[in-house]
Amino acid sequence: MFRTITCGELRIADISKEVVLAGWVQTVRKFGSITFVDMRDRYGITQLLFDETLNQQLDDNPLGREYVLQVKGIVSERSNKNKNIPTGDIEVLVKEFSILNRSITPPFTIQDDTDGGDDLRMKYRYLDLRRNAVKKNIELRYAVNRATRDYMHQNGFMDIETPFLIKSTPEGARDFVVPSRMNPGAFYALPQSPQTFKQLLMVSGYDRYYQIVKCFRDEDLRADRQPEFTQIDCEMAFVEQDDVLNMFEGLIKFIFNTVKGIDYSEQVQRMSWEDAMWVYGNDKPDIRFGMKLLNLKCPGHVFTGKGRNNLLIDGAGFGVFDDAETVVAISVPGCADYSRKQTDELTEWVKRPQIGMKGLAFIKCNTDGSFKSSMDKFYDGERLKAIAEAAGANAGDIVLILAGSEERTRKAISELRLDMGRRLGLRKEDEFKLLWVLDCPLFEYAEDEKRWVARHHPFTSPKPSDIDTMINNNPVIENAAEYLKHPYANIKANAYDMVLNGNEIGGGSIRIYQKELQQKMFQALGMDEAEQLHKFGFLLGAFEYGAPPHGGIAFGFDRLCAILGGSESIRDFIAFPKNNSGRDVMLDAPSTIDQKQLDELQIKLNLD
Amino acid sequence: MFRTITCGELRIADISKEVVLAGWVQTVRKFGSITFVDMRDRYGITQLLFDETLNQQLDDNPLGREYVLQVKGIVSERSNKNKNIPTGDIEVLVKEFSILNRSITPPFTIQDDTDGGDDLRMKYRYLDLRRNAVKKNIELRYAVNRATRDYMHQNGFMDIETPFLIKSTPEGARDFVVPSRMNPGAFYALPQSPQTFKQLLMVSGYDRYYQIVKCFRDEDLRADRQPEFTQIDCEMAFVEQDDVLNMFEGLIKFIFNTVKGIDYSEQVQRMSWEDAMWVYGNDKPDIRFGMKLLNLKCPGHVFTGKGRNNLLIDGAGFGVFDDAETVVAISVPGCADYSRKQTDELTEWVKRPQIGMKGLAFIKCNTDGSFKSSMDKFYDGERLKAIAEAAGANAGDIVLILAGSEERTRKAISELRLDMGRRLGLRKEDEFKLLWVLDCPLFEYAEDEKRWVARHHPFTSPKPSDIDTMINNNPVIENAAEYLKHPYANIKANAYDMVLNGNEIGGGSIRIYQKELQQKMFQALGMDEAEQLHKFGFLLGAFEYGAPPHGGIAFGFDRLCAILGGSESIRDFIAFPKNNSGRDVMLDAPSTIDQKQLDELQIKLNLD
Repeated sequence: MFRTITCGELRIADISKEVVLAGWVQTVRKFGSITFVDMRDRYGITQLLFDETLNQQLDDNPLGREYVLQVKGIVSERSNKNKNIPTGDIEVLVKEFSILNRSITPPFTIQDDTDGGDDLRMKYRYLDLRRNAVKKNIELRYAVNRATRDYMHQNGFMDIETPFLIKSTPEGARDFVVPSRMNPGAFYALPQSPQTFKQLLMVSGYDRYYQIVKCFRDEDLRADRQPEFTQIDCEMAFVEQDDVLNMFEGLIKFIFNTVKGIDYSEQVQRMSWEDAMWVYGNDKPDIRFGMKLLNLKCPGHVFTGKGRNNLLIDGAGFGVFDDAETVVAISVPGCADYSRKQTDELTEWVKRPQIGMKGLAFIKCNTDGSFKSSMDKFYDGERLKAIAEAAGANAGDIVLILAGSEERTRKAISELRLDMGRRLGLRKEDEFKLLWVLDCPLFEYAEDEKRWVARHHPFTSPKPSDIDTMINNNPVIENAAEYLKHPYANIKANAYDMVLNGNEIGGGSIRIYQKELQQKMFQALGMDEAEQLHKFGFLLGAFEYGAPPHGGIAFGFDRLCAILGGSESIRDFIAFPKNNSGRDVMLDAPSTIDQKQLDELQIKLNLD
Repeated sequence: MFRTITCGELRIADISKEVVLAGWVQTVRKFGSITFVDMRDRYGITQLLFDETLNQQLDDNPLGREYVLQVKGIVSERSNKNKNIPTGDIEVLVKEFSILNRSITPPFTIQDDTDGGDDLRMKYRYLDLRRNAVKKNIELRYAVNRATRDYMHQNGFMDIETPFLIKSTPEGARDFVVPSRMNPGAFYALPQSPQTFKQLLMVSGYDRYYQIVKCFRDEDLRADRQPEFTQIDCEMAFVEQDDVLNMFEGLIKFIFNTVKGIDYSEQVQRMSWEDAMWVYGNDKPDIRFGMKLLNLKCPGHVFTGKGRNNLLIDGAGFGVFDDAETVVAISVPGCADYSRKQTDELTEWVKRPQIGMKGLAFIKCNTDGSFKSSMDKFYDGERLKAIAEAAGANAGDIVLILAGSEERTRKAISELRLDMGRRLGLRKEDEFKLLWVLDCPLFEYAEDEKRWVARHHPFTSPKPSDIDTMINNNPVIENAAEYLKHPYANIKANAYDMVLNGNEIGGGSIRIYQKELQQKMFQALGMDEAEQLHKFGFLLGAFEYGAPPHGGIAFGFDRLCAILGGSESIRDFIAFPKNNSGRDVMLDAPSTIDQKQLDELQIKLNLD
């Protein structure tokens, strides 16, 4: 061992002890004949004092930033204590020192606020990882990892490794593929998730499985996506939806408690997908704040079970509303005093291409009980008051109203709600609100491909009450434009997403375990029997030999860590991430390979 | 939940309780109007009793093997107790039952001794995994996984994930490569190990790292190799060899204790590589038994520090020994009474092509004090006695002697020793003996490639005392045949292998952390500067910014589990293994992919 103790351990009680420390030189400060050095390791920083007896040696062996140093010395009380660090009461009076390795000048400062740009820090990731700001993310990630494993172990789950070299069955995202040298012309695929394997494990009787596992998707990378990412992947047999929800809200609460010291004792709210869309315009609503939607108008074929508030706006001759498919409002607290400039700015905000609305209507609920609206010409005070009251507005609030086509308008009001929440400081980084969103539609219709696609994945079961609808109807649609009238459009999935502060952190479902239903699902997705057998013959086979009812969930581990760490970026929580082009700029990967390797694999490049 | 309790839990104390169970039908036995069913799940087997009231329902819904069943019933005491299973005191008198899923007849019996052959079991691995014999392997693997994580956590190691899509730097084994769609013509490689990443983490200051991680090697698969396999991968900074040895013999002892209930309190033996070769003829000796080698003769350039026993055999005019490069003997206890047939059979055994010796000499040390030898013509009783005594033989033992070229003969005597140990029952499955083998040669010379190759890997440091030899000599060899005279041939690696019962279960080293030494190593391996920078520029770069001394180890997780489970085959301990052609016969992978996928990747097949 090059040390007897680390740089984070020494306290006042250790005074007079002889210690050996090793670490990196953070700073060197010379005062006359004495030199102070802050030495850093994983555990902390310790101040070293080199007195005049070592001057000559220091002159012969000058210290620089990031040098690796070993010192032997005596722990002494500091005259000038530093209350900001745990070792601030002491310093080590150096008796001997040895430079274990030197460093050239780093390309950026190894400090919380570094002067290094993103690209530079990624290229020298091994230096970036030394910064405390990054280190605490990596430590948090490990703490979440450890807490997860402890909880799963306590609950009888087994970590069972599933293979990485599997079969390509593209459905949804693209597979990364791996040419097989021993089977020329054939390819393995890297798993997008261990989905079918964990289901096979349930068929095999391993009734509680989990893994913290790398998954791979060859997608065009949007900001903050990684081609390889990590999942907490879980599955249980002999369970129904409630069992899974209880088990895994338990997991997240355990992580909150263990990692963040947060006692999340309240019941996790459960909301249907339909309610989430109706009340928040979003299937992963941030419920840290209210501003629930007032649905003034929406097309007949959606939200069939919901009430309408058409009368509040109908008959006023206001063409914007009359011509719109959907009219929705939110009440924003305390903003009735918004100036013309401010409402104009909001109007511009909703007109941005990303939002895409034509305009914004508002009602100011003045504190004197009067109402001032952009629609004064069409609605008198009484009608404005009725709308405001329906929106839940109080005196001093402003009601914001959007109108347009259903999908775009609902998305826009949701974005507007989130933005107003942000502006009002209602999305607090240190407040955590969990939510289950349940029972989304099983299918979406891909109009371009003229087929149903699974909203979740092809192994998700319909709600038990919808199984007959699925079995007894032909999935084929004659008139694609009228797909909403097909019975499949109303089938609900036996699925659940866990939402944390407006981010989907996990999703899962009760699975299909009956061969016939699975075949019907594949058929609905446009797979003929030959394709079903080629891609999923093993799963259909397994379902013939006594498959139990089962279900599970997968959490996005990178995202979960990022949210717990109070960050928007998953990259900050990955030791060696890739950039937005899928490149590792430190390694310079991917890169060309030798012709010999291509020859052995019996492939060649086919570049344009 | 489809159950209130599992099939392994009910005891005599539970009598009269109403329970709900779910599981698989193991057996159905009908006795007149009552039917017994053994129901199985992950936790055990429970006997169900269907009495005459359920006859009609059973006739309408007959039960078959591997059906998935749910029953509600009352726990009752069995009249005919089964002492072989924990639930053998009770049965469940069924009140209601429901068939959750049916099964067609399985292709083999789901029992410890199955009638299914290897290929069939691999094709239906999801059924094979139901067999208790396989299940206990998977459970053992999880127990080893859990124990490892507990020990590493207690010792301050952090599990830090390293990337899977990295850069191809073939050196030794072949890489699996992954074409990049976003970077046409470029490829990622799958890691053969996280070696360079864990070293970077040490440079970054994360001084105790571990991972249980998948690694990939595209090798021609010998028996019991897998293209993807799992490592316990570990690294520590600020350590010397002894620190690593102590830490990781602690790990294996902890696993022994936790998983097998074995208190391995004795000191783990440490032996130099040279001693292992000298005493056992093998760098991973099985030390559960003795039969140490008597080195009668060996060439001058190997084992320079060892004594010789040439005088025992010289001058007898025995051409076989006189002409041989190497003569080695072992004494096999209690086998002096071997018949002519038995010594002939041993002679045939060493003459097999796998062993490749020309013959076998022996000395029988009869219990009456006389000696009988195949070399009676050349050696009188006194000389035979001297040899036998030097070999450590007692009355009743047989001394077996092999002669030939050094490498082949040493390997042969080692194989013979192992086989004799097996014949005599000295290699006990339930006895575990650990051994560290230290300081192997740093380099081997590849005569065909005319260059040095790293015996371990290019990041292994020489022993501190050999660093100057390495730095100060030109690695290039003029006369390849005389490579043993080059100073590099005598450089020892600062490396260590952990051996368990004759199997290498782990290996590691203290690493090079100085840029110049690392460059010298690359140069010795025949890499010019451009190649060094292309392949390992990031590592050489990292070494410029204050790399600490560090070292580590990696254990073969699959192999470790297999040995702990008393098996020779790692496949039995992998949930979804590949066969010897690298195929997953259950998935039918690898397989062809769509032309669209090839086009997107801008590659094409180049089959002969």
